Amino acid sequence: MRDVQTVVDGYIAMWNEPDEAERRALVAETLTEDATYVDPLMAGEGVDGITAMIGAAQEQFPGHRIRLHAGPDAHHDRVRFTWQLQDGDGAAVVTGVDFATVAEDGRLRSVTGFLEP
Amino acid sequence: MRDVQTVVDGYIAMWNEPDEAERRALVAETLTEDATYVDPLMAGEGVDGITAMIGAAQEQFPGHRIRLHAGPDAHHDRVRFTWQLQDGDGAAVVTGVDFATVAEDGRLRSVTGFLEP
Repeated sequence: MRDVQTVVDGYIAMWNEPDEAERRALVAETLTEDATYVDPLMAGEGVDGITAMIGAAQEQFPGHRIRLHAGPDAHHDRVRFTWQLQDGDGAAVVTGVDFATVAEDGRLRSVTGFLEP
Repeated sequence: MRDVQTVVDGYIAMWNEPDEAERRALVAETLTEDATYVDPLMAGEGVDGITAMIGAAQEQFPGHRIRLHAGPDAHHDRVRFTWQLQDGDGAAVVTGVDFATVAEDGRLRSVTGFLEP
């Protein structure tokens, strides 16, 4: 079972990976096959669905990257962490919080994103 | 289906209700029969289990009350909100964030609490 910091680092990496095959591999390492993702703006299911969802998000924000901003903060089989979407100059354009459930093997199963006002 | 503000107001009220029968009624109005609650310090399942869990928490913090501090912030079938535990003088002694899934009838089903540092 991977520790939660490793999994969350993989989660951030999968959002930033431009190559679809490599991104799919990162998603499969980080999320369960039956994983779900939902935030106010998008939703995806499964490794393929979430890989494609992230690709669409990357097209909306060219040159941007996600960075881990705070956490992870974990207890039982739950974790939360704060991330920022940064533009090419490193300026934060969106801050959000993700909550997730953690499967027995350490991968994330159900991820919910909220955007800070 | 009750709106999310009403349900979250009921959720805060159930944490503050000292009478066990009245608290159980508030829990049953606010949470599904199969609801779960987990935070770093406690966990409970079902209407009876969560009613008892809150009673034990109240005994640990006599004279304290929970207040809604921010939110609710909801999308899809998910909601988050921030609360504070206040002492008898109204001073915040703990701040936390609850994240929950919302059942079709508007009640909360799975509640996860995190405590702010």
